[in-house]
Amino acid sequence: MKLRAQVLLSILVCFATAFTQTIQKDATPKTMQERLGYPASARLLVIHADDLGMSHSVNRATFEALEKGWITSASILVPCPWFPEVARWAKQHPDADLGIHLALTSEWTDLRWGPVSGMNRVPSLVDGQGYFPLDTPDVDRNAKMPEVEYELHSQIDRAKKAGIPLTHLDMHMAGMVSSIELFDVYRKLRDEYKLPILLEPAGTHGLPSGVSVPADEATIERIITMEPGVASSDWFDWYKKQLSTLTPGVYQLIVHVAYDDEEMRGATWDHADWGISAISPGARVCVGDLERVGEGATVAILQ
Amino acid sequence: MKLRAQVLLSILVCFATAFTQTIQKDATPKTMQERLGYPASARLLVIHADDLGMSHSVNRATFEALEKGWITSASILVPCPWFPEVARWAKQHPDADLGIHLALTSEWTDLRWGPVSGMNRVPSLVDGQGYFPLDTPDVDRNAKMPEVEYELHSQIDRAKKAGIPLTHLDMHMAGMVSSIELFDVYRKLRDEYKLPILLEPAGTHGLPSGVSVPADEATIERIITMEPGVASSDWFDWYKKQLSTLTPGVYQLIVHVAYDDEEMRGATWDHADWGISAISPGARVCVGDLERVGEGATVAILQ
Repeated sequence: MKLRAQVLLSILVCFATAFTQTIQKDATPKTMQERLGYPASARLLVIHADDLGMSHSVNRATFEALEKGWITSASILVPCPWFPEVARWAKQHPDADLGIHLALTSEWTDLRWGPVSGMNRVPSLVDGQGYFPLDTPDVDRNAKMPEVEYELHSQIDRAKKAGIPLTHLDMHMAGMVSSIELFDVYRKLRDEYKLPILLEPAGTHGLPSGVSVPADEATIERIITMEPGVASSDWFDWYKKQLSTLTPGVYQLIVHVAYDDEEMRGATWDHADWGISAISPGARVCVGDLERVGEGATVAILQ
Repeated sequence: MKLRAQVLLSILVCFATAFTQTIQKDATPKTMQERLGYPASARLLVIHADDLGMSHSVNRATFEALEKGWITSASILVPCPWFPEVARWAKQHPDADLGIHLALTSEWTDLRWGPVSGMNRVPSLVDGQGYFPLDTPDVDRNAKMPEVEYELHSQIDRAKKAGIPLTHLDMHMAGMVSSIELFDVYRKLRDEYKLPILLEPAGTHGLPSGVSVPADEATIERIITMEPGVASSDWFDWYKKQLSTLTPGVYQLIVHVAYDDEEMRGATWDHADWGISAISPGARVCVGDLERVGEGATVAILQ
């Protein structure tokens, strides 16, 4: 099977390094583009794949997409069975822009995972079967924050111990912005590990209701991600429309890449919206054909 | 891909139920065949697949082989990511002869698993990465028996809680007979759960050195399993030779079934002997075409 790339964007430029630099405060607040070394008028795009490590199918597709520049970064589900394969690949690709996809949920039904720190250490984070719950509302209802903090430290620390150079933290199923308490842990991890977190001012990965933070804490103007309901034949046009209308800012396009194989069909069998259409050949990587022109390049400038 | 069955054996008869009956002691010790309700001269064969739950590929092949009668029983790796798929299948197949493949090791390098009870609860059972060690000598060196006992209870209890009717206990990588202490835990679990354990008088799954137990504790005369080094073109003849020379007794033929797909190639990539040859089409199930003539049938009588 072959991943098809479609041309929407071009030049890749240095991002990850700049992104992890300490944000400098001065009298005149700078835009995120300026803080990254670009003009305030730049339109920058991170093309990001979630769920690396979930399965061999996801790993194969993500590695290929990163190696060919179809995506610019990815984040890792550390509790998943194929995490060791990610660690091995990361050693061979030390410049890859990889973050931790902080996980407190396990959404499939036949393939599941639980806390790295063990169900006995963090009992408020597991369901009756000993796995992370299927969805975030269960986390909101039951999770004790000291256990959340312990588990997420364990996930980050396992990746660091495996030698993976981390560039950022983000969250599985938007789990870190579903309550004020979880959001506090998210920010705390950011400060402790000195890693940028994915955060948009509003939207699925935005601030929880009732929370306000300084404006420059949001790292992304807006997340662009396709929700179920768009026919795969319309994907190209959908992405084109989303990207062509963007105003200056830093955006993140989130995709989920995998091969349309037995393993992936087995994992997604009872999730109609994440089945064939989400992983059908030719539509896995929806923006791409990007040329790599600089080291550590993980942002595309929209032309 | 199609699993090919080759005719070596015939009639299937009731085994699992009889096998789990309380062994009756009387003045004249009975042979295992007699205890199962057969003449002392019977040659009985369990055809058993290990490692159910390890991957979707293994699950698919094992389910198919059980449904078609090419194998007569299987045992489950509870700590593995695809265990929930096994639990779902077991509910739909309540007569399937399924046991627990007690696990303290995780032998692949890109796909790994660790204790169900969590690395913090059983720290002597995990390696530096938090997974079960790659091989049994590491278990022998480091494992503390109370932690082994706790973890194996957790594995059995998770399967019972998931509603799987269990018929037996056996062991991943012969891990429960590699020391006297581990063997003691194995027998203890047998007595606690009242489930027969796989045990041969001598051989890879036989008594640890220096141990003697009453003769009738061995449940199997001898295990037949192919070791690396036999070309796949010779497999049929190899099995034929092994089975045709058996004298009266109860034997267990152990196989490892999976599809020759990307997931399985990914898991076994650095294990030459477990790669293509072990999972090549046409040789996955090496004895079969058995007719099901009784309920709960899990033994073949060699003609």
